[in-house]
Amino acid sequence: MSVPRLFWEDFTAGRVIDCGPRLVTREEIVAFAAEFDPQPMHLDEAAGQAGMLGGLSASGWHSCCLMMRMITDGFIGEASFLGSGGVEEVRWRAPLRPGDNVTVRVTVADTRVSRSRPEIGLVKFLMEMYNAGATEPLMTLTVTPMFARRDATRAADDQVRA
Amino acid sequence: MSVPRLFWEDFTAGRVIDCGPRLVTREEIVAFAAEFDPQPMHLDEAAGQAGMLGGLSASGWHSCCLMMRMITDGFIGEASFLGSGGVEEVRWRAPLRPGDNVTVRVTVADTRVSRSRPEIGLVKFLMEMYNAGATEPLMTLTVTPMFARRDATRAADDQVRA
Repeated sequence: MSVPRLFWEDFTAGRVIDCGPRLVTREEIVAFAAEFDPQPMHLDEAAGQAGMLGGLSASGWHSCCLMMRMITDGFIGEASFLGSGGVEEVRWRAPLRPGDNVTVRVTVADTRVSRSRPEIGLVKFLMEMYNAGATEPLMTLTVTPMFARRDATRAADDQVRA
Repeated sequence: MSVPRLFWEDFTAGRVIDCGPRLVTREEIVAFAAEFDPQPMHLDEAAGQAGMLGGLSASGWHSCCLMMRMITDGFIGEASFLGSGGVEEVRWRAPLRPGDNVTVRVTVADTRVSRSRPEIGLVKFLMEMYNAGATEPLMTLTVTPMFARRDATRAADDQVRA
């Protein structure tokens, strides 16, 4: 693996990173739903029309997965990313439809160094997925992944001081 | 669509529904990661060994998607399920590995009728994914989806009284 370009230190509070766009097709919405979330409103236009969302819409889990791919291509893939222990909250605010062209806006909400492992830092991100031209996000998500710190020496120093 | 067998009224607090098992293969872990979460630890055994999780492990989003499919096959598919506005919390507590045989234990934590739409009820579920033989879950998740109520007349009565 090549040396990451982005480390924990690069994710300063308030920083905004825009990812995408990505055009979402009917075929991928239906294929994802058939595999993981086979509800009628995610599989069939008529069932979607009859339901609460007024038309075929993607599984909310599909939105999460598309977001993950978009942020990986956008910056996670070149960062010292170490994964996450979970997700704080996901809100599906509006349907994701066939033909939507979505972007993900990532905002650094907070950062801290791990107490137990000072060579690692945590970054709390607010992620918002928008359809093109929309002013309100269709999905918001809060997650706090881990990243390696740039300066291993400094991390070791912190450990000695702690 | 056929008439659902399970309505909001059937999800009483404390009820437990077990779903699965499902055997998770290396091929599906890698295929999912390649599409949605292409991190080295989800794609490559050597990268997994070198990382924090000590071996190839599934994307946490993959665990969520497998859970959604398992609960759909287990009971959601025959329920008056109307989707969810989001997810309260996801915790990835231990890695999901190739060859793991997982089950999902769904516990009804709480239920309530929608204030704005009394024909709909909400059910707060705690979902726990276990590998076979494990006493601790590898993933826990809290989610509060909507279900149609069985008795539309009663729902309408509630609305008149409210």
